[in-house]
Amino acid sequence: MTTPPPATDDLWAVVPAGGAGTRLWPLSRSSEPKFLRDLTGSGRTLLQQTRDRLVPLVGDRLLVVTGRDHRDAVRAQLPEVAADDVVAEPSARDSMAAIGLAAALLERRDPDAVMGSFAADHVIADPEVFADAVRVATAAARDGWLVTLGIEPTFAATSFGYVHLGDPLTGHPGVHAALGFVEKPSADVAGRYLASGRYRWNAGMFVVRPGVLLDLLAEGDPAFAASLRAVAADPATLEDVWPRLPRIALDHAVAEPAAAAGRVAVVPASFGWDDVGDFDSLAGLLESHESAGVTVLGDDALVHASGATGLVVPAAGRTVALVGLDDVVVVDTPDALLVVSRSRAQDVKGIVAALRQAGRDDLL
Amino acid sequence: MTTPPPATDDLWAVVPAGGAGTRLWPLSRSSEPKFLRDLTGSGRTLLQQTRDRLVPLVGDRLLVVTGRDHRDAVRAQLPEVAADDVVAEPSARDSMAAIGLAAALLERRDPDAVMGSFAADHVIADPEVFADAVRVATAAARDGWLVTLGIEPTFAATSFGYVHLGDPLTGHPGVHAALGFVEKPSADVAGRYLASGRYRWNAGMFVVRPGVLLDLLAEGDPAFAASLRAVAADPATLEDVWPRLPRIALDHAVAEPAAAAGRVAVVPASFGWDDVGDFDSLAGLLESHESAGVTVLGDDALVHASGATGLVVPAAGRTVALVGLDDVVVVDTPDALLVVSRSRAQDVKGIVAALRQAGRDDLL
Repeated sequence: MTTPPPATDDLWAVVPAGGAGTRLWPLSRSSEPKFLRDLTGSGRTLLQQTRDRLVPLVGDRLLVVTGRDHRDAVRAQLPEVAADDVVAEPSARDSMAAIGLAAALLERRDPDAVMGSFAADHVIADPEVFADAVRVATAAARDGWLVTLGIEPTFAATSFGYVHLGDPLTGHPGVHAALGFVEKPSADVAGRYLASGRYRWNAGMFVVRPGVLLDLLAEGDPAFAASLRAVAADPATLEDVWPRLPRIALDHAVAEPAAAAGRVAVVPASFGWDDVGDFDSLAGLLESHESAGVTVLGDDALVHASGATGLVVPAAGRTVALVGLDDVVVVDTPDALLVVSRSRAQDVKGIVAALRQAGRDDLL
Repeated sequence: MTTPPPATDDLWAVVPAGGAGTRLWPLSRSSEPKFLRDLTGSGRTLLQQTRDRLVPLVGDRLLVVTGRDHRDAVRAQLPEVAADDVVAEPSARDSMAAIGLAAALLERRDPDAVMGSFAADHVIADPEVFADAVRVATAAARDGWLVTLGIEPTFAATSFGYVHLGDPLTGHPGVHAALGFVEKPSADVAGRYLASGRYRWNAGMFVVRPGVLLDLLAEGDPAFAASLRAVAADPATLEDVWPRLPRIALDHAVAEPAAAAGRVAVVPASFGWDDVGDFDSLAGLLESHESAGVTVLGDDALVHASGATGLVVPAAGRTVALVGLDDVVVVDTPDALLVVSRSRAQDVKGIVAALRQAGRDDLL
């Protein structure tokens, strides 16, 4: 950028901390999901890392929205966050309800606020580039845009959605119009997206005025937006209202119709984003720090490898020996062991489904 | 065979129960070696199976020679064997000392005896064919031969020694002269052996009069044979004598020179022998009972596999999930976990060596 980045004194961060991380079983459990774990060996959990990178942008202006079961764990991991700023959902009702509730609370609390929503379980390699992109997005959001961060694709991913990049916006350097969102594409389509240079990964990160978000929701579902605003006005009604809110993703409820109406902007950026969706992703993320052989997430001294590559997580404190296997992931926990090839990492969710069917909820 | 098999009223079984089974770590440990474990899921350990198959031939005429550390475990597993028939070596001094001591004890105890030596940690699929071969060998041993059982090779193994088959012996149907022993060959040589039809695997099983064995030893090392006979005459001298006995394999001390002198015979046989030398061997042994997919040695209910083949040993009682890997062996024990490709099963001994070097004898 040639101009100094805009200030973010009016920016609040909203951090939705949910999702089971099923494909990261047995590391991620319903009792201790992905965002509560240190998956990078940094000494900080994904949730803590998420706050760490937001503090330079928002200081204390941060709300976490999480499940009631995880509220205590979130508070323990983020002692700096005030109790009122950890919002507990009575039950999981998808991202529109979670983020919409945060928007409604912020709309009352700070009518001039801009909010940025950033999931608690992603990894970002370059926080400064991320911060610059958020600053640019914030300036556009002040003008009423729903601004998404569009990650420059590094391969033809089929496990992410994409946003279609339009022309640059006048008056907002670094910001483009969004022509639309597309769901996870086939490999062929993803290849064409990559080659075209006109598509960005939709990482689910966006910046918007809370009132703009709720008004966009109201255009499609006025009752939903009204319910969220009513709960914010009288939090005592949360228990009654919450179970009747629609279960819908924010992308479907707001982002896609808003893009079709020309109300969405994109800040293209490249800051080493990874959603750590499965063990292949985690292994790739961690191996870049190693020269060769087996990457260990945890205590190196527990792992003995010979003629092997991949990722070992010795989380049970036991010795793990790995011999003669390439691109394999071994996750050793006190009550469950997973051995999976990186190329089949997506299929871990099938194991979780089988365990659920077998009544082994104690392992999930 | 066309004639009824000879009786074996004078046959004693000697069962050397030693060896660490390093390549079967972490299932086999120095505290609980291979022969003390049920490696086939039969409910009987390899030692117990060895006795089971010998009882029809020898009844109670059976000596076990084992390390002092394992004497109590051997007695616990074989309550039918008298205390005096479990001979404890003060320390491991290789097979000549162990089996030679048993021979010296038997020579005094039953001067007309024939002895057959059968390792405690092998698996035999067809005990009746084995018994027939031993009966044939016993008859030839009575006439002064050192008689080995020569296993018909089923593949060009490079991990076994071979015995070179000569012409049939007159007067002993089913018995051939042995032209010599050869150590573990290269793959090329093993292939030629297999194609020639004139080589048999040397499984280390042999039948001989105790006095003949000791006299053959005395031809090369008179002091060694005299020491063994002295200990048998006065067992109180065992502690003094034992540490000074040569560490040498019986094959080198007796079998090879005796073959060169035309004193060794072979009974060719095919009874589904396996020395369970490593996890590839164990996986092959067990998978023949299964249709496809993953073989489980232990509790099936603990193992969840998807798109995987190989062997899982869930010996720690934990759930094991295996996804997208072929020909892999997973051995889960309370303090150590091994994941190895079948094709690299031999390299497990390198892991054991590394653990020893790292001072982790607690795991060995």
